Amino acid sequence: MATVLITSGPTREFLDPVRFLSNASSGRMGRALAEAFCTAGHRVIVVSGPVAIDYPPQAEIVSVVTTEEMLKACQSIFPDCDGVIGAAAPCDFRPEQMATRKIVKSGTPLTLRLVETPDILASLGMMKRHQWIVGFALETHNARQHALEKIQKKRCDLMVVNRPSAIGSDCSSVEVLDSEGTCLAEWTGTKTDIALRLRELIEQKLLKLSNSVGGG
Amino acid sequence: MATVLITSGPTREFLDPVRFLSNASSGRMGRALAEAFCTAGHRVIVVSGPVAIDYPPQAEIVSVVTTEEMLKACQSIFPDCDGVIGAAAPCDFRPEQMATRKIVKSGTPLTLRLVETPDILASLGMMKRHQWIVGFALETHNARQHALEKIQKKRCDLMVVNRPSAIGSDCSSVEVLDSEGTCLAEWTGTKTDIALRLRELIEQKLLKLSNSVGGG
Repeated sequence: MATVLITSGPTREFLDPVRFLSNASSGRMGRALAEAFCTAGHRVIVVSGPVAIDYPPQAEIVSVVTTEEMLKACQSIFPDCDGVIGAAAPCDFRPEQMATRKIVKSGTPLTLRLVETPDILASLGMMKRHQWIVGFALETHNARQHALEKIQKKRCDLMVVNRPSAIGSDCSSVEVLDSEGTCLAEWTGTKTDIALRLRELIEQKLLKLSNSVGGG
Repeated sequence: MATVLITSGPTREFLDPVRFLSNASSGRMGRALAEAFCTAGHRVIVVSGPVAIDYPPQAEIVSVVTTEEMLKACQSIFPDCDGVIGAAAPCDFRPEQMATRKIVKSGTPLTLRLVETPDILASLGMMKRHQWIVGFALETHNARQHALEKIQKKRCDLMVVNRPSAIGSDCSSVEVLDSEGTCLAEWTGTKTDIALRLRELIEQKLLKLSNSVGGG
């Protein structure tokens, strides 16, 4: 059986002690994946941003808030894993500076300079030896082209492409691309369904488990 | 018995279809207040931003996402209420423009111009006739002074002053100021405790219910 790192949920990047940038990721895809892999007897470590859901009790949970914290946790855990599934939606911009006091409204516009946060999967891609990497790409347009760029940048073995409608929802509609950008599968269903099919595909293609049933 | 409008939870202000500005308000204080007023037989209408908690089934719930949506819902409901408790933490800045497509990372910083969103309680303060207004002020410094400015701007009858540590927590430590800025009470405890004491104080001071027990 394999040791699988799953990133899950959003991260937050603070402007001041109260306000932050984030997204509506609920952690439900990460939870569904954790359940699918735990059920099959794999060891699962979830690095999760702030979520209001519960992960399966068999999974080991590392809780983080910011993208930098998620990166550090993943970098420390990844070397001992067989692979990583990047189901989190890390906040990919952060305010260049965080105010130590709550910003007081003055009636005039506020100019905020945002810088990019580190790309977690790309960082793990740089560290990768025997490990496989499965990414998620959320795209609103030019999905295939952006996904292919991300596959290369993050050195992904598989990339799951979805749409903003998946965020916070119980259902999703995804395409799974291989490292060349070839579409291996298209699935629509609950996140539980998609997680099970993705586990089967990973077991077949990446873990090379012969007793796997179903799959892409 | 009274009809009480309670705002609750955070609101979100989107940069693009995926990313937003928000805060960690959980809606727990709004829920505790809804429970406290429902239990005492009052009619409760909760206008709530996106939260992962459940409100009491006796309360009427209006779900919103942005500050503008929360404002519109409150403006339509407030005239038929006896008073409002502003327990929400509406996002008070929004990007001047929202991108229709997900912003693609380019490797260079992004400059974001933020403008203030409408002040919901101040807008209700402008509409107020017989109604009372209870505000919440979250302050990191100069708490009294900022709270007094907010009391005047929002035409509040009572102002509950708390700290960022209250956000997302089960507990809080608050001061309650009257419309002159005089401190009427200081309470520390669970949000359920604080909600019950605030209901008693509102019943005594603002609803003038003689059968109320406890209070301030």
